[in-house]
Amino acid sequence: MKTTCTDRKIAVMGGGSWATALAKLLLENCREIIWYMRRDDRIEAFKRRGRNPAYLSDVEFPVERINFYSDINEACRAADTLLMAMPSPYFKAHLAKLTVDISDKDIVIATKGIVPDENELISDYMEARYGIDPRRVTVISGPCHAEEVALGRLSYLTVACSDIDRAIAFTSLLNGRSMKTFVSTDVRGIEYAGVLKNVYAIASGMVHGFKAGDNFQAILISNAVREMRRFVDTAVPDRRDTDESVYLGDLLVTAYSRFSRNHNFGSMIGRGSAVKRAMMEMEMVAEGYYGTKCIKEINDRYGVDMPILDNMYDILYRDLPVEIAIDRMANSFS
Amino acid sequence: MKTTCTDRKIAVMGGGSWATALAKLLLENCREIIWYMRRDDRIEAFKRRGRNPAYLSDVEFPVERINFYSDINEACRAADTLLMAMPSPYFKAHLAKLTVDISDKDIVIATKGIVPDENELISDYMEARYGIDPRRVTVISGPCHAEEVALGRLSYLTVACSDIDRAIAFTSLLNGRSMKTFVSTDVRGIEYAGVLKNVYAIASGMVHGFKAGDNFQAILISNAVREMRRFVDTAVPDRRDTDESVYLGDLLVTAYSRFSRNHNFGSMIGRGSAVKRAMMEMEMVAEGYYGTKCIKEINDRYGVDMPILDNMYDILYRDLPVEIAIDRMANSFS
Repeated sequence: MKTTCTDRKIAVMGGGSWATALAKLLLENCREIIWYMRRDDRIEAFKRRGRNPAYLSDVEFPVERINFYSDINEACRAADTLLMAMPSPYFKAHLAKLTVDISDKDIVIATKGIVPDENELISDYMEARYGIDPRRVTVISGPCHAEEVALGRLSYLTVACSDIDRAIAFTSLLNGRSMKTFVSTDVRGIEYAGVLKNVYAIASGMVHGFKAGDNFQAILISNAVREMRRFVDTAVPDRRDTDESVYLGDLLVTAYSRFSRNHNFGSMIGRGSAVKRAMMEMEMVAEGYYGTKCIKEINDRYGVDMPILDNMYDILYRDLPVEIAIDRMANSFS
Repeated sequence: MKTTCTDRKIAVMGGGSWATALAKLLLENCREIIWYMRRDDRIEAFKRRGRNPAYLSDVEFPVERINFYSDINEACRAADTLLMAMPSPYFKAHLAKLTVDISDKDIVIATKGIVPDENELISDYMEARYGIDPRRVTVISGPCHAEEVALGRLSYLTVACSDIDRAIAFTSLLNGRSMKTFVSTDVRGIEYAGVLKNVYAIASGMVHGFKAGDNFQAILISNAVREMRRFVDTAVPDRRDTDESVYLGDLLVTAYSRFSRNHNFGSMIGRGSAVKRAMMEMEMVAEGYYGTKCIKEINDRYGVDMPILDNMYDILYRDLPVEIAIDRMANSFS
């Protein structure tokens, strides 16, 4: 166990699979962690069984080194670093319970996405709503499926902060036998890419479920990569290479992996399920559903050419039949 | 049936699956075609059964519109356009039988790759060895698995020629209900990309067989995309976007598809098969095996940083254990 974490009080915020995988990583490097999860019954079961009863429940935890809280305010008071790992659709509701001032905390964002209704990146929202200094906002992003991190399979995370030294410092809390890290300063570009990859994962799952074939799926993803690049380069102008792992790799793992909720959600739709029914059948939220609407509305400002996004929006929110959407996409591809 | 093809005498050269899929496409647009395949017994069985007895044998052909030849010289004499679709390892041996002058023919290259031993792109070889005018050399490339083309699944081909009008003219012979085409002038860049994707497909299959996980595979492919870009931009300096379908899409379909021979070959090696044994178990040649050596030798000239290629070379030709190669690759990734 390294000593880097001993003087940092880090709180994992959220009890889902990604939160659980990150907690496991942190406990390799930190003497103890704070862990906020909403439900007391889950905490009790976790303590009793030494495992998260709901997610990645094969993974054992040293519960004596975890300080659980079901009260978000107590958790935040006890911590100096908040690792946000709630699914984006619940993000705002969790934080709405906050009464303590968190403006002096370090914020690490592991939640993928945009705050629904606000159509704001999570970093922007934290800065605007909670007065966080942008230099204290760090984003961590994949390609990194929680399930594989938990299995100890070699994975890579990118840690991004406008203050690169802070990004580097945080990598020491994540690095380990099966985790390698890169650093970046492209906080907002990485956040947008993290939302878009879920949109494209739904599209990829949809063409898979529709049995459009591997050739078509590869063309879709090649077009998605360029659509993502157009949008990110317009919304957050900067010098970046979107073929790097945190952009392209993350898109690929989500679009092709059998672990991807968004891919599975899309696959159900491609096989003919109604959108509402597919949502009900999913145990966990497919974040790309909300991401599609958010980016669609944000792109009203930018006017970037995004045929895949537009068609996915029409499928998910306007009952456009899948076969018509696929035909339209096919004609837009280059 | 369109009339564009009536005055063009096109010969499909080769009897494998890609040749078979392309012949099927041509017969949608051409009144008749010439088809060279080496073995008389295959031709006889093809005529009798109306199907290629060895490849894609579910696909029916109007054999009355096919002029078969087992003599390459007769086939070339009868044709004005030669569509080269032999697997690259046999390419040179087929053409070695040529005694007729083909310098006045249009050459369309569907064979992926480099001429073994010569370490030359097929277009360069055709120009240097057979005196073909570069403006008459066209390359067609995927992402396009023969099996899916034969199944009538929507696919995309890129037709590249330094004379763009010639590329456009040729697309009319391929376009159809389930085939869309793009054009390009990047003949040599596309050829190199077509060789490299097979190398990376072996690598992707290998990490899959090794059970390194989806996260690792995505990181590998993201690095492969950048490695390919570095090499192609150095070997054939030009303005190009390697995220386009013919580069990135082709790499993805080969690296991720279950139809990919190269992926399957890599997967056997990743599961612990010796290279020789994996080659014996393959029904068809995994072209990336030869491609790895060719690009490795060509890159001696250019010195491009290619850690994936280098490690695959060491596995395939120098008995480097897979686990060491994966560890080395992992440390090279960014």
